[in-house]
Amino acid sequence: MSTATPNYAFAGPFAQPYIPPIRSLAPYSRRPGTVSLSGGYPDPALFDVEGLREASARVMPELRGLLQYANVEGQASLIAALIKLSGERGIDCKADELMITSGAQHGLALLARVLLQPGDTAFLEDPAFPNTQQALRYTGASVHGVPTGPEGVDVDALDEMAARLKPKMVCVVASFSNPGGATVSRARRLRLLQLAARHRFLLVEDDPYGELRYSGEPVPPILALADAESRPWVAYVSTLSKTMSPSMRVGWMVAPAQIRNRCVSAKGADDMANPVWIQEVATQYLGGGRYHEHVPRIRAAYGARCDALNDALAGVLGNRVTFVKPEGGMFFWVRLAGDIDATRLLPYAIEKEVVYVPGPGFYLDPASHVDGFAMRMSFVTVDEAQLRLGVQRLASAIEACEAGAPVSVSLG
Amino acid sequence: MSTATPNYAFAGPFAQPYIPPIRSLAPYSRRPGTVSLSGGYPDPALFDVEGLREASARVMPELRGLLQYANVEGQASLIAALIKLSGERGIDCKADELMITSGAQHGLALLARVLLQPGDTAFLEDPAFPNTQQALRYTGASVHGVPTGPEGVDVDALDEMAARLKPKMVCVVASFSNPGGATVSRARRLRLLQLAARHRFLLVEDDPYGELRYSGEPVPPILALADAESRPWVAYVSTLSKTMSPSMRVGWMVAPAQIRNRCVSAKGADDMANPVWIQEVATQYLGGGRYHEHVPRIRAAYGARCDALNDALAGVLGNRVTFVKPEGGMFFWVRLAGDIDATRLLPYAIEKEVVYVPGPGFYLDPASHVDGFAMRMSFVTVDEAQLRLGVQRLASAIEACEAGAPVSVSLG
Repeated sequence: MSTATPNYAFAGPFAQPYIPPIRSLAPYSRRPGTVSLSGGYPDPALFDVEGLREASARVMPELRGLLQYANVEGQASLIAALIKLSGERGIDCKADELMITSGAQHGLALLARVLLQPGDTAFLEDPAFPNTQQALRYTGASVHGVPTGPEGVDVDALDEMAARLKPKMVCVVASFSNPGGATVSRARRLRLLQLAARHRFLLVEDDPYGELRYSGEPVPPILALADAESRPWVAYVSTLSKTMSPSMRVGWMVAPAQIRNRCVSAKGADDMANPVWIQEVATQYLGGGRYHEHVPRIRAAYGARCDALNDALAGVLGNRVTFVKPEGGMFFWVRLAGDIDATRLLPYAIEKEVVYVPGPGFYLDPASHVDGFAMRMSFVTVDEAQLRLGVQRLASAIEACEAGAPVSVSLG
Repeated sequence: MSTATPNYAFAGPFAQPYIPPIRSLAPYSRRPGTVSLSGGYPDPALFDVEGLREASARVMPELRGLLQYANVEGQASLIAALIKLSGERGIDCKADELMITSGAQHGLALLARVLLQPGDTAFLEDPAFPNTQQALRYTGASVHGVPTGPEGVDVDALDEMAARLKPKMVCVVASFSNPGGATVSRARRLRLLQLAARHRFLLVEDDPYGELRYSGEPVPPILALADAESRPWVAYVSTLSKTMSPSMRVGWMVAPAQIRNRCVSAKGADDMANPVWIQEVATQYLGGGRYHEHVPRIRAAYGARCDALNDALAGVLGNRVTFVKPEGGMFFWVRLAGDIDATRLLPYAIEKEVVYVPGPGFYLDPASHVDGFAMRMSFVTVDEAQLRLGVQRLASAIEACEAGAPVSVSLG
C-alpha cells in the first residue's frame, strides 16, 4: 500500500501552484520596524471604525431578517445605493445591469468566466496586478499583454493586436493604475470605446481607485463616456475596498444585462451571494452619509502621503531614480537609474528594513525581466514620516548594493 | 449606428442563461398564506439571533483589526475552530488541508475549477442539487450522472462508469442527500473509498446536513473512514449554513494539501477571502459554546417536523404516495402513485397554496422527465401545523388534478 502523494491531474492553469509576488514578500513587510511600501493596503489607522460600528448597530435590530438565503445578485438596498454611487461617477445604469461582487477582483473573475474558455483570447495591460492576470488565466484562455505606460494602455498597440488576435475581453485600469500609477485621458478613453465597438471585445474597466484623486482634472469612468454604439461593449467593476474596508469584500459590477445575468448564474453556483449582514452594513454606511464624509478624509491623508513620497524620492534619491507623480491611487512606479536591478536590490532593502515590489512581478512573463529597474511603491499604508524614513533606507540599500556589500537576506 | 443588443460570444457553459428550478418557484412560495415546502431554507424563527449578537458584540472592540486585507485561506482562528469541529466529526486534518470557503457550494466550485477543464469528466449523483450540477458544468467538463436511490449513490454503477469514463472528480452527498434524503451506509462509504483509490478520482463528499440527524445510527463522514491509500483521493466540504446562518456564507473544505493549495490560489484570484468580520463572528460563535448549544435545539425542532411530515403524508395521502422517511437533513423525496405527473400537479398545488419542487428539475437532464412522479418536499422552513396544512392542500390539489379541473395558475 503506497502512501506517496499522487500526481494529481490538475486543470491546465492550476498545474503549478501560484504565489503572487506581493504575498511572498509579506513575511518581510510585516517585520516589526520595517517600512512597508509593498502591499496596496489602506492604512488601518484611517479606517472609519466608528462609522462602521454605527452602521452595524443600525442593522442589529433587523439581524434575524439578514441571516436567510438571499438574492445572488445582492441586496436590493445595496444595489440601489451603488446605482446612486455609480451615478455620482457619471454612470447611469439600471438594476438589471448591476450586481454585487466580492470586491472588484471578483467582478473581473466572473466576467472572465462567462466569456472565456480555452481557445479564447483576452488582453490585459502589461504590467498589471498579478491577481487580475490569474483571474484571466484560470479560465484557460490565452492572455496577452498590451503595453502600458505613463499615459496608460497603448491604444495603437491595442488596435493592431485586437485586429490580429481577436480578444473577447480587454481589461484596463484607467484611473491611477496598478502598478503604473497612470491615468488615461478622456480622449484616449473615447478611443478605447471606439476600439471596443469596432473589434467587438468587452472592454472592462477595473476602477478600485477612482475616488482617490489628489491632483489634476477628474476624468469620468469609461462607461460614463460610452455612446449607444459602444455601451454594449463596456463593463465597469469597482469596490469599497480602498475607501471603506478591503476585508468586507463589497464590490460591484455594471455590465450589459445579458452579460451581468450570466455573471449572476456563475455566482449562484459559486459563493451564492455576498454575506447579507455585511451588505446591509455597507448599505447603512453609504446611506447614512458616513461614506461620503469619510472619502474626502482619506483622500486628504493619502494626497499628503503622495506628496511626501514624491518629495522624498526627488530630495533623497534625486537623479538615481525616475518616476511620474501619480494623480491619485496608491502607487508610484519608480525606475532606478544606472545599472541597479530592482530584484537584486531587494535583499539589501529588506536588510535596511524597507520593502517594495520589484517590477518584473507585475509582468505577464516575470521571467522576461522587462523593466528590471522598476519598483512599485505604495504610499498609503504608512504615514509621511515613515515614507521619508523608507526612502532614506532605500538610499542606503542602493549604496550597499552598488558597493557590492555582503547581504544577509536571501530570497531563495 | 445600431443600438441592437449584440450576440455575445459567451463561453460554452454560459451560452444560455440558467435559472435554477427552485429559484423559479420563489415567486409562488413567497406568496402570503402559501405553505412552502420548496426551498431548502432553514426556519428563520430558529436562527440563534441572540447568540450571533453576542458573538458580534465580542468582535466589535477589535473591529479595526478586522477590516484589512487578510489571508485568502481564512482567519487562523476560524481555521482552528473548524479543525476542531471537523475533529468532532471524526476527521483529523492539519491547517494546510483546510480552508474557509463561502459555503460548501464554493468548496465544490473551487475543487471543480482546479481539477476540471473542457475534455475532462466529472460524476455527480443523479438526481442532485442543481447548483452543484452547474458548478461542475461551468468548468466546461462533461458531467455524467451516477444513479442514486434510497441507499445513496449506486456503487456498482459508479465502478462500471468510472472504469469506462475516467472521471477526475466524483461528488456525493452521503448523509441525507438533496433531493433524495438518502444516507449512505458505512459499508458503502468504504466501498466508495476503494473505488476512489482504484480509479484515482477525487471523491468529494458534500456534507451540509451531517449534524442534522434525527434517527438511526450515526455514520462518520467518508474522509473519517479513509485509510492511507484512499486519503489522497478524498475531499470534504461542509458549511455552517444550515445550523448557524445561510447568508453568512461560512463553509470549509478539507482536502489533500496539494489540492487545497490550488483552491487557495483560485480563491485569491476570485473573491480573495471571506469577509473577515463575519469569519470572526463565526469563530466567536463556535468558540463561545453557543453553536454547540444551538445545534441540538434545531435538531430537535427539525426532527419533530420530520415526524410531522412523515405522519401527514402517511395519514392524509396514504397509498397515493410512496416515500422513505429520511434519517436527517431537510428533504422527503415523495413519489406520487398512479399516473399523476408532479410537474402537471404543480399548478394545482400552487392554486391550493402549497409549493414543492417537481423531481425532474434535479436531474442532469430535466427534459428526460425521469422520475416525473417525484417531488422534493422540505420540512424545515415551516412548523408542524403548516406541514399538516400543506399536505392537506396537496391532497385537494391531487383530487382537482385527477378530476381534470380547470386551473388558474400557469407556469409558462
